[in-house]
Amino acid sequence: MLRAMSAQLVGQFDPAMTAYMTETAELYRGVFATTHAATVLVDGTSRAGIEAALVSLVEPGQRVLVPVFGRFGLLLTEIAARVGAEVHVIERPWGEVFDVEEIADAVRRVRPHLVAVVHGDTSTTLAQPLEGLADVCHEHDALLYTDATASLGGNPFRTDDWGLDAVSAGLQKCLAGPSGTAPVTLSDRAVAVLDRRRSIEAGLRDASSRVVAHPIRSNYLDLAMILDYWGPARLNHHTEATTALYGARECARILLEEGVDAAVRRHRLHGGAMAAGLVGLDLHLFGDQRHRMSNVVGVEIPDGVDGDAVRGRLLTDFAIEIGTSFGPLHGRIWRVGTMGYNARRDTVLTTLAALEHALRAEGVAVPPGGGVDAALEAYGVAA
Amino acid sequence: MLRAMSAQLVGQFDPAMTAYMTETAELYRGVFATTHAATVLVDGTSRAGIEAALVSLVEPGQRVLVPVFGRFGLLLTEIAARVGAEVHVIERPWGEVFDVEEIADAVRRVRPHLVAVVHGDTSTTLAQPLEGLADVCHEHDALLYTDATASLGGNPFRTDDWGLDAVSAGLQKCLAGPSGTAPVTLSDRAVAVLDRRRSIEAGLRDASSRVVAHPIRSNYLDLAMILDYWGPARLNHHTEATTALYGARECARILLEEGVDAAVRRHRLHGGAMAAGLVGLDLHLFGDQRHRMSNVVGVEIPDGVDGDAVRGRLLTDFAIEIGTSFGPLHGRIWRVGTMGYNARRDTVLTTLAALEHALRAEGVAVPPGGGVDAALEAYGVAA
Repeated sequence: MLRAMSAQLVGQFDPAMTAYMTETAELYRGVFATTHAATVLVDGTSRAGIEAALVSLVEPGQRVLVPVFGRFGLLLTEIAARVGAEVHVIERPWGEVFDVEEIADAVRRVRPHLVAVVHGDTSTTLAQPLEGLADVCHEHDALLYTDATASLGGNPFRTDDWGLDAVSAGLQKCLAGPSGTAPVTLSDRAVAVLDRRRSIEAGLRDASSRVVAHPIRSNYLDLAMILDYWGPARLNHHTEATTALYGARECARILLEEGVDAAVRRHRLHGGAMAAGLVGLDLHLFGDQRHRMSNVVGVEIPDGVDGDAVRGRLLTDFAIEIGTSFGPLHGRIWRVGTMGYNARRDTVLTTLAALEHALRAEGVAVPPGGGVDAALEAYGVAA
Repeated sequence: MLRAMSAQLVGQFDPAMTAYMTETAELYRGVFATTHAATVLVDGTSRAGIEAALVSLVEPGQRVLVPVFGRFGLLLTEIAARVGAEVHVIERPWGEVFDVEEIADAVRRVRPHLVAVVHGDTSTTLAQPLEGLADVCHEHDALLYTDATASLGGNPFRTDDWGLDAVSAGLQKCLAGPSGTAPVTLSDRAVAVLDRRRSIEAGLRDASSRVVAHPIRSNYLDLAMILDYWGPARLNHHTEATTALYGARECARILLEEGVDAAVRRHRLHGGAMAAGLVGLDLHLFGDQRHRMSNVVGVEIPDGVDGDAVRGRLLTDFAIEIGTSFGPLHGRIWRVGTMGYNARRDTVLTTLAALEHALRAEGVAVPPGGGVDAALEAYGVAA
């Protein structure tokens, strides 16, 4: 992937460049498990993808329902409010997810223009089940948008089967690429909303161009314009980020070469081994484990232990980075990732061995070899 | 630069990463010729930088004055309108620039909150003189913002000397990097405006956090938040685009190693030779040549010549890309760039030789060797 990103730059309307764009869109259809024509990259980090979806699909004053079960749900409320939506929130304690029926009830009650829900909220490590939700949304004329940044590529995700109208993601989690590019896919229903809001910018429009009552409040993140740039019209918008495009293309190519299902199985295997290993170190896993993402495990920081000191030892002595979390979970849990090229047996075992050392050095009594042994057992290898 | 971008990724709060960010900000102070502490990268293309400046500095309903002398001035009006500004426009025919006094008069008349002006408008190849404008703006409590995407690094540009309050740029022109990163610098006066609008996002804020009446209408492009992320607080916002950061750092490092003044002289030398060569091919240069940017030359497409056929021949037979322009200049002029690593004698001469061939192939009578000879003469080399 890094090699792909060191390839020579090409002009934005060079036929080679537009062919790369078309090819990359097709690869991301595979990643998203969709046939949506409207599949593009937004040149920005994953939150640029979120904002692009919300600012493009939601007019000021329209109702947006956000089921919040972690920090990134709060981010959706924040962005929805900034784009002028009337934001309605339902909440679950961090560490739990919603029953789909609970969200469906709120849809019936609030009658939102759009439901915005995080798929995998990395702050709590949990993934919200989405199957069945689209039916209720569509019955009530609501669009269903989800942020799949933290989950895509490492957990089951089916855009078309689940009836999702808009999905945005990032590369820096299971896709194992650099932050800075946000793949987005949109259903025909979502594109129809864009079509009603589509405007052509000053400097490109001609006398025949329509004037729109409520144009999208961002130019850079206007998905209608981005579609016009990625589509056959190739209408100039931004200058596509060449190097980032190469990287995004390579991320998808590698994932599809392995096979999305195989990659999901791999994440489940190694994430499961990590979770077993952490339990083997006498640590307590955080959150409803039935809904844990495969690629990150949350674990409670034991009482009296300085979480940052442990993280510091891991980083300094072993060059291993683990996270804490945000808001109410800051300093209360660690989050240990096993994603992308780090969803491997050697990284899982090394991390557990290093963590055992760091815990002991901070005065925690841990079963010697307990983490590695439990992980090996989870792998089905005799300890 | 491409080698730098193939370096290994690093976690966003890894000390190595935050040190890169700090170091990169300092390099861009050199590029912008400023001591502004508030110097950061926006993770998006140059138009993301423009929108970040406008959406962050302008509240809905505030007056923005945009002097328009080409397509990218129109883009400023477009973005300013989308962020809710009351947009006031003064215009010059494409191919001319404003007297500073003309803009100053408009400032006195309109009393804008902010003046947004393109420095080098690549659609017409011209650069707007900015010296002296800040005094009038500041006298009338207006901020002065300029888009230096097309000019920075190849033309004289002095943020502090010119009193500019906000500047945004891109990498894909004279900085010779990939599109996808927008360096931005802000004066204390601009930061004071941000401070009044600063809000901390849901999920990060605590009980002591202020609630702001008119929060910035974008989260992704909120410069107050981006400053908090780049500054000592390191408050989580987006996940910094690692690879793009490496690229941006390398672009600035290379430019400063050559020296900004030396790079500007180099662009002037080779841009001048290109212009002389085009005249030597009996072509007519477009626009007021006293204000032409050093890094791009506009030239009229001769009557009866199919401009795209010539461009096609250059691309297919010589792998050389030249542009046409936008709006009223589309199909009327070609634009020939000499920037970044393409501001070299061999590329200038090769382009002129290839263009001579392509013109002749399209039936245009051109003086044999006229372009190369005139360029060599401009270089002071006996033809």
